[in-house]
Amino acid sequence: MSTFLHDDFLLGSPLARRLYHETAAPLPIVDYHCHLDPHDLATDRRFENLAQLWVTGDPYKHRAMRIVGVPERVITGDASDREKFDAWAATVPHTLGNPLHHWTALELRRYFDLDEPLTSASADRIWSAANARLAGPGFTARGLLARRGVACVCTSDRLLDDLSAHTAIARDGGGLRVWPSLRADDIVAVEAPGFPAWVRQLGRATDVSISDYDAFRTAVTRRLDAFSDAHGKLSDHGLDDFHYVPTSEAETAALFARCLAGESLSPAEVGRLRSGLLRFLGGEYARRGWIMQLHLGAQRRTSSRLRRLAGPAGGYAAIGPGTDVASLVAWLDDLEEAGALPRTILYPLNPADFAPLAVLAGSFVEDGVRGKVQLGPAWWFNDHALGMRAQLEAVANYGLLAVFIGMTTDSRSLLSLVRHEYFRRVLCDWIGAQVAAGALPDDPAALTTLVQSVSHDNARRALAL
Amino acid sequence: MSTFLHDDFLLGSPLARRLYHETAAPLPIVDYHCHLDPHDLATDRRFENLAQLWVTGDPYKHRAMRIVGVPERVITGDASDREKFDAWAATVPHTLGNPLHHWTALELRRYFDLDEPLTSASADRIWSAANARLAGPGFTARGLLARRGVACVCTSDRLLDDLSAHTAIARDGGGLRVWPSLRADDIVAVEAPGFPAWVRQLGRATDVSISDYDAFRTAVTRRLDAFSDAHGKLSDHGLDDFHYVPTSEAETAALFARCLAGESLSPAEVGRLRSGLLRFLGGEYARRGWIMQLHLGAQRRTSSRLRRLAGPAGGYAAIGPGTDVASLVAWLDDLEEAGALPRTILYPLNPADFAPLAVLAGSFVEDGVRGKVQLGPAWWFNDHALGMRAQLEAVANYGLLAVFIGMTTDSRSLLSLVRHEYFRRVLCDWIGAQVAAGALPDDPAALTTLVQSVSHDNARRALAL
Amino acid sequence: MSTFLHDDFLLGSPLARRLYHETAAPLPIVDYHCHLDPHDLATDRRFENLAQLWVTGDPYKHRAMRIVGVPERVITGDASDREKFDAWAATVPHTLGNPLHHWTALELRRYFDLDEPLTSASADRIWSAANARLAGPGFTARGLLARRGVACVCTSDRLLDDLSAHTAIARDGGGLRVWPSLRADDIVAVEAPGFPAWVRQLGRATDVSISDYDAFRTAVTRRLDAFSDAHGKLSDHGLDDFHYVPTSEAETAALFARCLAGESLSPAEVGRLRSGLLRFLGGEYARRGWIMQLHLGAQRRTSSRLRRLAGPAGGYAAIGPGTDVASLVAWLDDLEEAGALPRTILYPLNPADFAPLAVLAGSFVEDGVRGKVQLGPAWWFNDHALGMRAQLEAVANYGLLAVFIGMTTDSRSLLSLVRHEYFRRVLCDWIGAQVAAGALPDDPAALTTLVQSVSHDNARRALAL
Repeated sequence: MSTFLHDDFLLGSPLARRLYHETAAPLPIVDYHCHLDPHDLATDRRFENLAQLWVTGDPYKHRAMRIVGVPERVITGDASDREKFDAWAATVPHTLGNPLHHWTALELRRYFDLDEPLTSASADRIWSAANARLAGPGFTARGLLARRGVACVCTSDRLLDDLSAHTAIARDGGGLRVWPSLRADDIVAVEAPGFPAWVRQLGRATDVSISDYDAFRTAVTRRLDAFSDAHGKLSDHGLDDFHYVPTSEAETAALFARCLAGESLSPAEVGRLRSGLLRFLGGEYARRGWIMQLHLGAQRRTSSRLRRLAGPAGGYAAIGPGTDVASLVAWLDDLEEAGALPRTILYPLNPADFAPLAVLAGSFVEDGVRGKVQLGPAWWFNDHALGMRAQLEAVANYGLLAVFIGMTTDSRSLLSLVRHEYFRRVLCDWIGAQVAAGALPDDPAALTTLVQSVSHDNARRALAL
Repeated sequence: MSTFLHDDFLLGSPLARRLYHETAAPLPIVDYHCHLDPHDLATDRRFENLAQLWVTGDPYKHRAMRIVGVPERVITGDASDREKFDAWAATVPHTLGNPLHHWTALELRRYFDLDEPLTSASADRIWSAANARLAGPGFTARGLLARRGVACVCTSDRLLDDLSAHTAIARDGGGLRVWPSLRADDIVAVEAPGFPAWVRQLGRATDVSISDYDAFRTAVTRRLDAFSDAHGKLSDHGLDDFHYVPTSEAETAALFARCLAGESLSPAEVGRLRSGLLRFLGGEYARRGWIMQLHLGAQRRTSSRLRRLAGPAGGYAAIGPGTDVASLVAWLDDLEEAGALPRTILYPLNPADFAPLAVLAGSFVEDGVRGKVQLGPAWWFNDHALGMRAQLEAVANYGLLAVFIGMTTDSRSLLSLVRHEYFRRVLCDWIGAQVAAGALPDDPAALTTLVQSVSHDNARRALAL
Repeated sequence: MSTFLHDDFLLGSPLARRLYHETAAPLPIVDYHCHLDPHDLATDRRFENLAQLWVTGDPYKHRAMRIVGVPERVITGDASDREKFDAWAATVPHTLGNPLHHWTALELRRYFDLDEPLTSASADRIWSAANARLAGPGFTARGLLARRGVACVCTSDRLLDDLSAHTAIARDGGGLRVWPSLRADDIVAVEAPGFPAWVRQLGRATDVSISDYDAFRTAVTRRLDAFSDAHGKLSDHGLDDFHYVPTSEAETAALFARCLAGESLSPAEVGRLRSGLLRFLGGEYARRGWIMQLHLGAQRRTSSRLRRLAGPAGGYAAIGPGTDVASLVAWLDDLEEAGALPRTILYPLNPADFAPLAVLAGSFVEDGVRGKVQLGPAWWFNDHALGMRAQLEAVANYGLLAVFIGMTTDSRSLLSLVRHEYFRRVLCDWIGAQVAAGALPDDPAALTTLVQSVSHDNARRALAL
C-alpha cells in the first residue's frame, strides 16, 4: 500500500512532477467560491471532535453511507458523533474509485499526518489521534486554513446576512481574507410562499418602505453596496432549470406588484418575473464590477423522504438535463445590449454541457477584458480527477486554458481546501502528457506561466487581490 | 498477427493481468438479464450449423452487414444459411475497431479453438470446422453455457409465457439455473390496438374475469406469482421515451375501463394510464423483493422499410435523446412515498446519461440495502470496451463501484456469454491503471474483493443465489 | 522546445509512426467540403501579406483574440493589416492547448518553413519572412494547395452563384479539381423577409416564371442541374435547430404560395413549409446521386453586438442542444419510403451527439451501397485532436470505421488543408494504440487498407473521382 497517494500521485510524467512540485504546490490558495461558515472563522472555532469537523455536516459522505445501506439514524439522526464517525469509517472501504476515497485519505494525511487507511479496524486509532490534534494548537478553523496556505476564501452569504463576521475577520484575521459573496437566490424566489414576508424583512433591513418595484430595487442595491463594502466581489445563482424570457421593466414591475400583494402567479408569470429580476441583477453586478456565477442544471428534488429527514441540501440531489443554451444566450445578450453584462462564470452540473458552455463563454467578450465569460471548474458531482480532466480538456480545446480562473471548492468543509492540491496535480499531469505527445511546447517559461495562471494568478487577478 | 486478442489483451499492467487471470477469470458467470430462448435450453438444442447458432438471429451482425451494403436477401431474406454465413465472413474485415470484430474472434476461439481470422478466404475452413464441432458432444445449448462456466441465466419472458421450459430445466438441468424474468412491456402497452384482446387472454390464463382494473390487477399478480414460483426475481421495462405523470388509482381505473372498452385514448391519457400502471407494478415488484430493470432511451422506430423486412427488433434501432430525469424522479419518489420502491437497475442507452443516472441512483436508498438503485452495465450499442470503461468510470466517480451489480449480456446468443470475459478484462485493466497512477491503493485483499464483487458476488447476492 | 510538433507528434507508438509516414502522409488530399473562395482559385490569387491570407478572414482567430480582450478594432475594425497580425501574434501564446496553437505552428512550418513560435517578439521576423514568400513563386492560391498535395476541393456555393469560376478552373486548372457544392440554405429560408425577392431572382436566373410551387421546383432543379454539370456532387444544409414535420406536397404548395405572396407564416407553418421543401430537395439530391450533408445543432445567434460588428458568421456562434433524433428519423424515413433517400453525412456540432448519430447512421442503408448514411468528421468547434478522437471512437464503436468518408476542413482558409495531416496523425495514433492493447490485429495489409480508406480512398470513391 506504500504507493497510494504517494508524493507523485496523479503525476504521470517527469515534467508533470516538476511543474507540480516546483511551481504549483507552493502557490497560495484563492478559494473564490465556497460555503464555509464565516462565524466559524470569525470565532476561530475549535471542533469538539473529528465527526463535528468532518462527518456530521458533509452531504457527500452522507450520500455514500446511504448507498451502502447505513441507516439514516447514524447519518443525520440521533446517533452519537462517535457512532456517525464509525459508520463513515466502515463505509470508506466501499468508496474505492470514488473521489471520497481520495479526499478522505488526503485530508487525514495533510491535516493530521495520519497515513493509515480509515476502516472499521483503524477507526478507534484515527478518532483518538485526530481528536488529540483538534484539541491542540493550530487546529482551529483559521489554523486549518493556514495549514494549507489559504490566502483568501469567499463565503456564500444571503442578501440579509449581516456580514459582521466578515468585518470582524477583516479587523483581526491576520493575513487571511474572508470575503462575502452573494448567494442571490432569495431575491428571485418569487414563487416561494414566504417571498412577500422576505421582502418586508429586506425593507426593514435597509430602511426602505417597499411598496413597489422601484423601492425593491433601491433596497436590494443597498444590500449589494453593503456586500461591496465588505469586499464582496461575486454573486451566485442556482438556476436549476433555467428558462429566460425577455421581460420589460414595466412588466417586471407589474408582476412584482402582484407578487408583493400576495397574488399567486402562473408558472409562466413566475418565469417572466424571475427573468426581469435577473436582468436587473445582472446590471447591478456589472455596475459594481462583480463576477456573476451561474450554477446550472441541478435536480435538487429527488426523494421526498430524504428531504424530510435531511433538509433541502441533504446530499440526495441529482444532475438534471443540460442547459437551455438559447435561454442563457438570451439573458446574456439582453445584458450586453444594455451595456450591463458582468463578468460571468458558468458552472453546468451535467458534464455533457462542458463543451457547449466552454464555447458559449467565448461568444460574449469585451475589449480589454480577459476571459469575460468563463466555464467554471468542475462542480459538485464532477469534482474529481475524471471531471476535472474533462473540464480542462473542454476549456483548452473549446476555449482558452490560459484565461481560466481555476479551482474553487464550493465546499462547506474546512478540510476541502486540499482539493486545490488535487486540481493542481490533474492540471500538471495533463500538461505533462500533452508535452510528451508533442502537442504542447516544452517551453519551461510558458508552461510555468500557464500553471501559475490557472492555479492562482487568474483567480487573484479576478478578485483584484 | 500473433498479438491480437492475446492472453493479456486489454490488460495494460502487471496488476491488471494478475487480477484478471487469478481472480476474475475463474469466477462463474451470473447473467441476470439476457434473451436466450429457454426452450433451446430445455430441449438442449443442437444447432444445425454455425449460421443458425451465430448469424441468422443476430441483429448486431445484420446491422454491420447492411452498413457495408450486403443485400437484405442474404441477411434476413431467403438466402441459404451458407450464403448468410459467407456474407458475414466477407463483412468481418470491415468491422475493425467495432466490438463485433472482437466478439467474432473471441467466440471462434473460446468455443471452437479457431484462431484464424474470419474472412471470405477462411470462411470455408471455419464453416466446416465449427459445424463439425456442433455435431459432436458438448456443443448443445447447455454444453455451450457449461463451456464458459455459466452458473445462472435469467431469460426474458412475457407475462403470458407458460414457463414450462424453466420448470423442465429446474428438474433436469444439472447445476445450471435458468430462471425466468419478466419482460413487462405487454402490461403497459395500452395504446396497442391488441391490448383489450391481450387482457382477455390474460384473464383466460389466470381464470379471472377481467371486467375492471381491480380484476386486471388480480390477474397480473397471479402471473407475477407464477414467475416468483419459477424463481423469477427481476422484471424489465423498455421505456423508450419515458414521461411519468403522477396518476391516482381512481383515474388509472377509469382510464383502464375506457381502454378495455376499446375506446381510443388521447396521447396524454395513454401517458397517464401507463404511469398509473407503472406505479402499480413497481409496488408489486417491491412486495416480491424483485429487481426492476428500466431500459431507457431507445429510438426503436427508424426505417419503416427495415421494420417491414426484418421485424420490430431487426437491428435498425437507434439511440434516442437522454432520459427525462424529472419524470424518472417523480416515479421513483411516488413509489418510495408509498413504501413500494423495489431495487432498481437503470440502463440508459444514451451514453450522455451515464453520469446523471449514476448520480440519480444514489438519491434513492434504503436503510440496510446496498446499492438499492443502480446504474446498470453498458447496454446494447454501448456494450464494448469504450462504453464499459465510460460506464465504470461513471459508476466509480459518480456512484460506488463496490456495490455495482456488474455485467449482463442482454443477448439472444449463447456465445455472447464470452462478453463477461471482456467485461472482466476492462474492469481489471481500469483498476490496474488507477493503482499505477497512485489513485487506488495497491492493497491485494481490497482489490481482490472489489474484482470479485463486481465480476460475480454482487450479482449472486442480488439474486440470493 | 525542440520536441513541439516534432515529426512524430501525436504518434504515440512505432506502428502509428510507420502507418502515418509510410501510408497516410503521401496520400493526396480530397477536401470534399470547404468554404474556399472559387474566385481566388480561378484567378490564382496572390495575397498581399500574411494577414490577408491568414488573419483578417479567420473567425477562429478572431474568437481567440476577443477572449483575451483584444479590441474589436484590431480584429474586424479599421486597424491596418499589420496591427491585426500583431494582435494575433500577441494572442498566440495564450492559446496553449487550443487547436489554434497547433494550426498556427503547423501552418507556419508546412507552408513557410518557419519553425519559430509566433509571439509578439517574433512577429516582425515572421511577418517579413512570410510576406517575402507570398511575393515569390508558388505561393498563390493554387500554389498553396499544390504544396500540400491537394487533388480536389469542393467549395460551398449558393444556388444562384454562377459557377463560372469552377468552369474556368476546369479549363485551365492543371490537375486540380475545384468542384462546386450546394449550400442550400437559401432555398429553405422561407421565414426570411427577402425570400420572395430571392425567388424572383431565381426565376430570372433560370428563365422560369415562378408563380407557384411547381414552377419553383422547376427553377430549382435547373440550378441543381447546373451544379451537376459543373461536377457538383454534394449539397449542404445548416439545420441549426431542426424539427421535421411530415408535410404533404399539396400543403407544401399551398404554404409556398402564401409565402410567395408575401404573407407572413406562423412559426409552425414555417416549419411545415421548410419540411416539405427538405423532402423535395432530398429527393432531387438522390435522383442526381448527390451526397446530402446536414450540419446540425449550431446556435448561431449569440451576441447581437458582435453580429452587428462582425456579420452573421463572425466567430461568435456557439453549440446548441443535441439533435432532435426523432425529427431526423422522420425525414430520412419519409425519403426512404419514397425511394428518395440520398447518401447522407451527418455533422452534429454537439459532441454528445456523436454516439447517437453514429448509431442512427447505420439505421438507413441500401443494398450494395457502403456507408450510405454517415457520421461526418468532427466539425467546427470539435475540429481538434480531442474531438477527432471522440468522433473516431464513436464511428469505430457505434458504426464501422472502414466505411468512414474521413476528414474535410470546412474551412475558408487555404492553409487549413494542413488539418488533413493532423487528422491522419490522430487516426494512425488511435490505430497504433488499439494494436498495442491487442484490440486490433497487427495485420499490416489490413491496417494499411484501413488507413488508406479513411484518409483518402473512401472520399475519392464517394465523389467518383
